[in-house]
Amino acid sequence: MASEALEQLIKQLARLPGLGPRSARRAALHLLKHRDRQLRPLADALAQVAREVVPCTVCGNLDTVEPCAICADGRRDPGLICVVEEVDDLWAMERGGGFLGRYHVLGGTLSAIDGTGPDELHVPDLLRRIEAADPPVSEVVLALGATVDGQTTAHYLAERLRPLGVQVSRLALGVPLGGQLTYLDDGTIDAALRARRPVS
Amino acid sequence: MASEALEQLIKQLARLPGLGPRSARRAALHLLKHRDRQLRPLADALAQVAREVVPCTVCGNLDTVEPCAICADGRRDPGLICVVEEVDDLWAMERGGGFLGRYHVLGGTLSAIDGTGPDELHVPDLLRRIEAADPPVSEVVLALGATVDGQTTAHYLAERLRPLGVQVSRLALGVPLGGQLTYLDDGTIDAALRARRPVS
Repeated sequence: MASEALEQLIKQLARLPGLGPRSARRAALHLLKHRDRQLRPLADALAQVAREVVPCTVCGNLDTVEPCAICADGRRDPGLICVVEEVDDLWAMERGGGFLGRYHVLGGTLSAIDGTGPDELHVPDLLRRIEAADPPVSEVVLALGATVDGQTTAHYLAERLRPLGVQVSRLALGVPLGGQLTYLDDGTIDAALRARRPVS
Repeated sequence: MASEALEQLIKQLARLPGLGPRSARRAALHLLKHRDRQLRPLADALAQVAREVVPCTVCGNLDTVEPCAICADGRRDPGLICVVEEVDDLWAMERGGGFLGRYHVLGGTLSAIDGTGPDELHVPDLLRRIEAADPPVSEVVLALGATVDGQTTAHYLAERLRPLGVQVSRLALGVPLGGQLTYLDDGTIDAALRARRPVS
């Protein structure tokens, strides 16, 4: 139907998460309709990212410098490591603004269904990093999703980390800010109830 | 948070229809996670499209040749022109497979709200094209959306085309294939009832 080049673009766009074949077609036409304001800037941005952005060999964050700006920041506590699933979870933690240590990006979660074991994730790197740390790492915060796979991974990591003599913690479960009880699932309400705190 | 280059990519992706800021972030990370299989092919596809794909000066279709393959196809009736809103509507008509004439892409619909008048669309081109046609155009099929703006545009075009001595038709309204009456809006059922045909 459309030319070979256009079909190829639509195919590539359709592989992005969140876009299907129809929305990829719409996006491709939108790009062609706004060639100078959108198509070229997107092509340039992709080329620049492909050229410049690399994963940090220490923590797995993405940055144009190596090690990344967070690992290189002397004001951040190297004895405190926050383990996240993916780079966007790291960004979410940073938006929170309350964490002043370093990170470790696993690259996913353990998953029996997908056949993802510890060696497919950056688990060996994490263990080596903690063993080699000087000064030593005092605490590892497991900031993994409150999903079955996330919590399985947290349990597994806690087991592996304990022998290394570090304190292991995880994010609190509870009612999210702005959350209305009527829309929350039973598990969250139950977790929040069990973790209730006295009102001072 | 992320590096400048990455922020720029996320910003550009977020401007695509169907992607918001969150899904753009997910898409950018997905691309970086699959650099060779996705990021580079997408960058290449964009560059190729930017370089090769041009709008046909006759009909507004997008192709790597000028005039486009449809306008250049001698087997297609030049006396039959189908007017569509956008290039993806042209593709939809082609997928239907039943139209063997040429096309004219308007580039949108008339819209009082958006301030889109006939001169913002390819209406003057259409009139000139029909006036200059040799052999003359016998029929113009208005394949515009069954929306308020689409139908307003169809009425307007019919008024402008009639003095040129061409027959003007529009797509039938009715029950779509696979459509269940219970899920159809009243307007569609009413239109289908008024256009009912005897069962032979």
